[in-house]
Amino acid sequence: MLDKISYKEAFYRCIDNAKPTDLYKNIFIKDALGEFLAEDIIARRDAPVFSNSAMDGFGFRNSENKKLKVIKTIYAGDKYEDFEIKNDECVRIMTGAKVPDGIDTVIPIEKCIEVTDEYIVIPEIKKGANIRLKGEEITKGDVLVKKGTEITPEVIALLSSQGIVNVKTFIKPKIAILSTGNELKEPWEEADEEEIYNVNSHSIKSLIEKNGFNADLIGIIPDTLEKTVEFIKNLKNRYDVIVTTGGISFGDADFIYEAFVKNGLKSFFRGIMVKPGRPTMVGVMENTFVFALPGNPLSSYLNAFALMIPALRKLSGAKEYFYNFVYAKNKSEFKVNPKKDHTVLGTFECGEWEVYKNYKYGSGMVSALSNSNSLVILVNKVIVKEGEILKVIPFNIGFCKKSDFFND
Amino acid sequence: MLDKISYKEAFYRCIDNAKPTDLYKNIFIKDALGEFLAEDIIARRDAPVFSNSAMDGFGFRNSENKKLKVIKTIYAGDKYEDFEIKNDECVRIMTGAKVPDGIDTVIPIEKCIEVTDEYIVIPEIKKGANIRLKGEEITKGDVLVKKGTEITPEVIALLSSQGIVNVKTFIKPKIAILSTGNELKEPWEEADEEEIYNVNSHSIKSLIEKNGFNADLIGIIPDTLEKTVEFIKNLKNRYDVIVTTGGISFGDADFIYEAFVKNGLKSFFRGIMVKPGRPTMVGVMENTFVFALPGNPLSSYLNAFALMIPALRKLSGAKEYFYNFVYAKNKSEFKVNPKKDHTVLGTFECGEWEVYKNYKYGSGMVSALSNSNSLVILVNKVIVKEGEILKVIPFNIGFCKKSDFFND
Repeated sequence: MLDKISYKEAFYRCIDNAKPTDLYKNIFIKDALGEFLAEDIIARRDAPVFSNSAMDGFGFRNSENKKLKVIKTIYAGDKYEDFEIKNDECVRIMTGAKVPDGIDTVIPIEKCIEVTDEYIVIPEIKKGANIRLKGEEITKGDVLVKKGTEITPEVIALLSSQGIVNVKTFIKPKIAILSTGNELKEPWEEADEEEIYNVNSHSIKSLIEKNGFNADLIGIIPDTLEKTVEFIKNLKNRYDVIVTTGGISFGDADFIYEAFVKNGLKSFFRGIMVKPGRPTMVGVMENTFVFALPGNPLSSYLNAFALMIPALRKLSGAKEYFYNFVYAKNKSEFKVNPKKDHTVLGTFECGEWEVYKNYKYGSGMVSALSNSNSLVILVNKVIVKEGEILKVIPFNIGFCKKSDFFND
Repeated sequence: MLDKISYKEAFYRCIDNAKPTDLYKNIFIKDALGEFLAEDIIARRDAPVFSNSAMDGFGFRNSENKKLKVIKTIYAGDKYEDFEIKNDECVRIMTGAKVPDGIDTVIPIEKCIEVTDEYIVIPEIKKGANIRLKGEEITKGDVLVKKGTEITPEVIALLSSQGIVNVKTFIKPKIAILSTGNELKEPWEEADEEEIYNVNSHSIKSLIEKNGFNADLIGIIPDTLEKTVEFIKNLKNRYDVIVTTGGISFGDADFIYEAFVKNGLKSFFRGIMVKPGRPTMVGVMENTFVFALPGNPLSSYLNAFALMIPALRKLSGAKEYFYNFVYAKNKSEFKVNPKKDHTVLGTFECGEWEVYKNYKYGSGMVSALSNSNSLVILVNKVIVKEGEILKVIPFNIGFCKKSDFFND
């Protein structure tokens, strides 16, 4: 019989067994979006590199003098010899321009009392105002970005500012996707009215791609145990991760498990007390991680999302691999079976969450996915009440048709 | 002087002036992740395509008979001639297998009282149980996915299930990124200790890419007005969107605005009462949208994120282009200037939000970006109190180091 472990237990068995890679590559920063750093990035220079003006305005030595002679203009990028500045003098200075020694304050044009080409008259202003001091943000030698960090546009901004263009990143796992079911047609194949299309390979491949990984679609597993054993044996030396869908339950046609075992599989579990997604097996063959997901498109997608993606991130050396959740108020009451855990689809919008079709959809209903943007994982629940605050895991909440995101 | 419009007004002027494209292309579904549909997708077939078993079990005609003779086994994918089933008979049937006419109920193996190769003994079970009826999910001719929808893994799942592999998607805008500042060095160039690297082009290009668009880095705008007018004239016929950074304030070296105006620019605004990001101009030259962003890396990134990305989505025919926000409790009090709107960086984790460095970072501090994962936009605020509920816009909240996302 299938195991009866909880969804939480299944999640931790996947995560705890996923050992981060130590293989890395060198990569040019422009190609690095979505990669995970295999090294701490150390600051090469102070930031700012020199004290500079935060505004277009006038720089001066703060003193009693409020009428100041304009002696010079300094633009961003100007290089100049040091010069002496007197207490009744100032320089016109542009945003980002280097502040000369002796100047301790910048006043923006619009705060001056009077501005002419020759002189300005200024009010009282705090010493140090509008100057960004050398090194106030970053000191050379600081750890800028930690090993395991995902390279986002924000990290690229920081690395660019330091002139760092080559980084070490972890090599991501090579992933193979197999499917079972000789009855399945590929979506591009001719099919009669009652033939069924292969959904799982394509939904899981695109889920993997959206998460920054690649996967090869290997095709359909052969229809005998002997051939399957051989087939898997060939793949396991070539791939770090093998994902299968279907054939893992206890029906007569389900020999996938046996074929993996004959290849040395050590399973972490086979069967989870979750709805949907019960017939799921995860384990390892030598160094190859195996996710044997259910045949139902909805179940396989949900387990790939909740169990596999976090494990793939950990295998890739990412330091962040737990889904971040958002809190949301439940919009309408629904019931679940308290003997199982549940992954339930719904729509998150502007702080509220609504279950899809009152949770009356089946695990074969693939349209539930594209009609939802998030899920909740329920443990030991009977009724989920209206107004209850839920932890929601988003998968596609970035944008909506209309929202008022201003705090006013 | 610069305009003094609010951030909300700036956002709506961008969005309202962004006219969706009507150009489309045909694309194979495997390359379509992140594209926007240029047509409604119509269901080609019912789902399920035939009534089928939701479980591995036994199918029968629900009656008084509780001891049933096993007459046949039906696997998923089996095709068979119609046959008669009697009230005291049943078939072994696998998940997904077609349910023969006359059979109205399936019982899973584990719910049977007795199971042998020849017969089974079953308890009372509801008629219709564990059968997925033909067409109960989708009826042929239904609108499956609407025009303007982003193609996600969930949509790919649905299209695959319908055997739909070619779709029309909108052609995304061609985007050019220019930068100003002849003083800037590219991150890969030799630079002396005090020279500054170009950050904006690279942060904005990667932000654009992360959002599913492409952009060409054109390089640095020439250093005279005449050359710049010519330069922009050449680009405007080739690009749908031009993004510049820097040179849009009223400093002496800022002739970008004039160069755009001489090319027919009609600006929607020049200047926003927001901190950071005041010197920003958005407008249109014939059919080319222009985003002239500030020179400060933080300011330009924030306005690119908040104002430009939504407009790019709308230009691309997306039906969803408003940021979805999440509610979060503010972790520590901070103050802002009530005369301006503010975009404030911070970290969202598990329902709480914490401002970065107590909002004491400057607009030149690019490390504020990679140390944050979200932002809030504040309007007319003075103090943001601890415990206050904020609307937070995420830019990188997908994963965290540890979280308990189970609802238990």
